[in-house]
Amino acid sequence: MATTDPVENLQALIRCRSVTPTEGGALSTLEAALTSLGFRVERMVATAEGTPDVENLYARLGTEGPHLMFAGHTDVVPPGDEASWSHPPFAAEIADGMLYGRGAVDMKGGIACFVAAVARHLEKHGAPRGSISLLITGDEEGPAVNGTEKLLTWAAEKGETWDACLVGEPTNPDALGDMIKIGRRGSLSGKITVHGVQGHAAYPHLADNPLRGLLQLTHALMDPPFDHGTDDFQPSNLEVTTIDAGNPAVNVIPAKATAAFNIRFNDSWTADSLKAEIIRRLDLAAAEGALRPGRSPVRYDIAWSERPSHVFLTRNNALTASLSEAIETVTGQTPVLSTTGGTSDARFIKDYCPVVEFGLVGQTMHMVDERVAVADLETLTHIYGGFIAKWFDHARAE
Amino acid sequence: MATTDPVENLQALIRCRSVTPTEGGALSTLEAALTSLGFRVERMVATAEGTPDVENLYARLGTEGPHLMFAGHTDVVPPGDEASWSHPPFAAEIADGMLYGRGAVDMKGGIACFVAAVARHLEKHGAPRGSISLLITGDEEGPAVNGTEKLLTWAAEKGETWDACLVGEPTNPDALGDMIKIGRRGSLSGKITVHGVQGHAAYPHLADNPLRGLLQLTHALMDPPFDHGTDDFQPSNLEVTTIDAGNPAVNVIPAKATAAFNIRFNDSWTADSLKAEIIRRLDLAAAEGALRPGRSPVRYDIAWSERPSHVFLTRNNALTASLSEAIETVTGQTPVLSTTGGTSDARFIKDYCPVVEFGLVGQTMHMVDERVAVADLETLTHIYGGFIAKWFDHARAE
Ligand SMILES: [Zn+2]
Ligand SMILES: [Zn+2]
Repeated sequence: MATTDPVENLQALIRCRSVTPTEGGALSTLEAALTSLGFRVERMVATAEGTPDVENLYARLGTEGPHLMFAGHTDVVPPGDEASWSHPPFAAEIADGMLYGRGAVDMKGGIACFVAAVARHLEKHGAPRGSISLLITGDEEGPAVNGTEKLLTWAAEKGETWDACLVGEPTNPDALGDMIKIGRRGSLSGKITVHGVQGHAAYPHLADNPLRGLLQLTHALMDPPFDHGTDDFQPSNLEVTTIDAGNPAVNVIPAKATAAFNIRFNDSWTADSLKAEIIRRLDLAAAEGALRPGRSPVRYDIAWSERPSHVFLTRNNALTASLSEAIETVTGQTPVLSTTGGTSDARFIKDYCPVVEFGLVGQTMHMVDERVAVADLETLTHIYGGFIAKWFDHARAE
Repeated sequence: MATTDPVENLQALIRCRSVTPTEGGALSTLEAALTSLGFRVERMVATAEGTPDVENLYARLGTEGPHLMFAGHTDVVPPGDEASWSHPPFAAEIADGMLYGRGAVDMKGGIACFVAAVARHLEKHGAPRGSISLLITGDEEGPAVNGTEKLLTWAAEKGETWDACLVGEPTNPDALGDMIKIGRRGSLSGKITVHGVQGHAAYPHLADNPLRGLLQLTHALMDPPFDHGTDDFQPSNLEVTTIDAGNPAVNVIPAKATAAFNIRFNDSWTADSLKAEIIRRLDLAAAEGALRPGRSPVRYDIAWSERPSHVFLTRNNALTASLSEAIETVTGQTPVLSTTGGTSDARFIKDYCPVVEFGLVGQTMHMVDERVAVADLETLTHIYGGFIAKWFDHARAE
């Protein structure tokens, strides 16, 4: 990595086959670049039963505050059918102004630009009056058990504290400068099992069809809406992601049936208050009994996914203003401050310091022919550079 | 087979391992017995692509009318875990007045009693002034493709005609004499597939969750009821027998989802009028769109099971009166004339002649330790004997 050139930085990173959970040389490449810039780099391997060991990296330049963190991941999702790519997914070829490769936008591109921005900042201004650190995981696209969450705990236990964080995930729907993410909805998943009594379809009175009860319970989750949105968030939304009875016998009433759901919830709810509301709806529907003669209560149980993602919203002027100003200066566009989309590792970081997200255009992420405009890499490097300068100004002024 | 003793007849039949589609010696045993009684016996092997070949038997005594048919099957369902039986399923052991074995009540017992009744009738009265035939299939418990339906066609093409038929299936819920079946509901099965658009649960507006539409369509099938019953039949009843999306990914909206249903319908409907009503309900629900913002019509298709069972009701005094009188004479009980329960091969026979069903007590059919009271075998033989005599009297008087 040449450090000041985001294109060369990104090509070096893409050529590392760092499909989760493989390090693939990506963190070592990054470590060499950061070391050459004066960062103290530490590697941390996280382990957990039932998941692969994962390598992570933490690098810090400077010892004083204010302390700005950049967070991201070098792992990438699998390329899928490599033959379907118009340029090989780990070759980092440039054609017609586009740089092709897995991770180009999600999010080796963001890391490449941030490293270039820091390198240029050091060339121009010297060491920042404060600290810059990079917190980079190799487990964002996988189970995310051995990634950012553990890396933060590990660093915090060593006494690290931060004043603000920028996550370099691709946040722009169409063009660089469209959108900063200042919060994320929470995510909660559960699985309902309804227990019935197996029997022959000709003798339903001797059986108890669990699908009747299950349809009633899922209906209670889908209607009415959980809320109508808040000032900062869109309405919470529940999707039933699967229903399964797995009964191949056309004349047989099955013994049980399951439904799984995922709900993306806004700041009207905590994971706990939402669980309580879901249980309230299910209990009410279950008590009404299924739609059948001689209704009796629906017998169900529910299993929650182990780790809900909590909703968060960042209200921090120094952070959002620095970033918005940098974006406006470079692109002439005023970014939308948004809370839409899925979850990200920002949900872990928000417990340590204010966090926002801004990176490349996400359109091709996780797809065949993932690619980034070479021009965008230069633009994002300028934005990140402007942000670094402005944030330290803001932070020291406070 | 000793022919006049229903217990010995049944033991000989149970000891043949005639699990569908295997003949297992059961038809040969029956053929020998019937031949010894003067029947002309024919064996007919039915074949169809994709199903095993099946042996069937047709036997006739006499050449003139009136012509009484007894119909049944020698094939049995598998014994399941043989170690769970208190007496081996193909040993035909007697203990505490009960004869144990697969097929004891469903329905080698009915055949054993009818053969004994005919043998005794011949000993006492000589050849009947008319004809008696047995139409026995080896494919009732299986796909029923190579069984009664083909055997009837084959016999009819040879010029056979019948005036009445008694099917020897177990019809009594609790005690011999409880119930004659004089009709059966129809059965129709279908499978609905709803097509959506796969996507991430965090971006439902980019996807189209097929489960929303499927829940709406299944609800339209379950409510309101199709009818409230008729003079002769209970209300039609629909059971959703399975719903499946088979989606293991908790954050993914699936691309399609299916639901299968089975409806047992009464004489308010034909299979065709019922299909039309189902389509009407589905189209109406589909046009309303799924429960979501920007509703668009639900895209679905439906596949019907190939062969619906048609509803039928037998109104024939000679047949039901002869049987009821015989039951009352022997047991002192007036049987209920019922149309409840599943389908039977009577649905094929009803196209050729009036048909009713009466046999043993069905409680243990298809279960481990299937068994029949030895006393019931003698009682049923008396009932069948009385029925044969009365039916020929009635039929000749008409
Ligand atoms: Zn990412
Ligand atoms: Zn049977």
